Amino acid sequence: MDWLEHIKWDADGLVPVIAQEHGTGDVLMFAWMNRAALAATAKRGQAVYWSRSRQRLWHKGEESGHTQLVHEMRLDCDNDVILLKVSQLGHEPGIACHTGRHSCFFQRYDNGQWHNVEPVLKSPDQIYK
Amino acid sequence: MDWLEHIKWDADGLVPVIAQEHGTGDVLMFAWMNRAALAATAKRGQAVYWSRSRQRLWHKGEESGHTQLVHEMRLDCDNDVILLKVSQLGHEPGIACHTGRHSCFFQRYDNGQWHNVEPVLKSPDQIYK
Repeated sequence: MDWLEHIKWDADGLVPVIAQEHGTGDVLMFAWMNRAALAATAKRGQAVYWSRSRQRLWHKGEESGHTQLVHEMRLDCDNDVILLKVSQLGHEPGIACHTGRHSCFFQRYDNGQWHNVEPVLKSPDQIYK
Repeated sequence: MDWLEHIKWDADGLVPVIAQEHGTGDVLMFAWMNRAALAATAKRGQAVYWSRSRQRLWHKGEESGHTQLVHEMRLDCDNDVILLKVSQLGHEPGIACHTGRHSCFFQRYDNGQWHNVEPVLKSPDQIYK
């Protein structure tokens, strides 16, 4: 059976994807892929997502230069979630978030509130010019 | 503003949740929460998800005993994905997957196929009896 057929795509033909940093184990971001995005990711060895807002393939880093080198692709027990192990390229330390932070998960819950706890490594104005 | 209002719930009133092991950084599983599940998780300090298949709150480990102690809750830049840092209790090493494996992400892509690369730590027959 084709490995792409093995995926249980949702009603919109998508699957959720978690990107985890290979070296540190940090969870960097969460996005979606359709069949073409997953096939492109496997072929290029770089993360290609499906942008739900723009309704098109999104080669991560196409604007920012912050591409993701894919070391490993994992699939979960229900065949409906993908985990990528990546190196976040283009800046050291890696910037996965469009806010210029290392990880998108920079808001931490504490005592009934969300707090920003990660620094901006590079201004978005400088990233997207 | 109420911290639960800060979440951008989807059309079904849900938010995707990634559970990551606190000690190892391993991504253990992916699930969903509604507002009640997230409130219960914060209150109990243990992961409570929304089961989409059973359409009810699902206190992780309620049958298996494999509960998740929550150390930290993170929210992403778009306020629509949650990351939990947990200790996977009830078995050593922790079993997060209903197949009896440590992590749900036990299928690795290699050369056009998905391969099971993680051992079953305890038989599901023994876990769910």
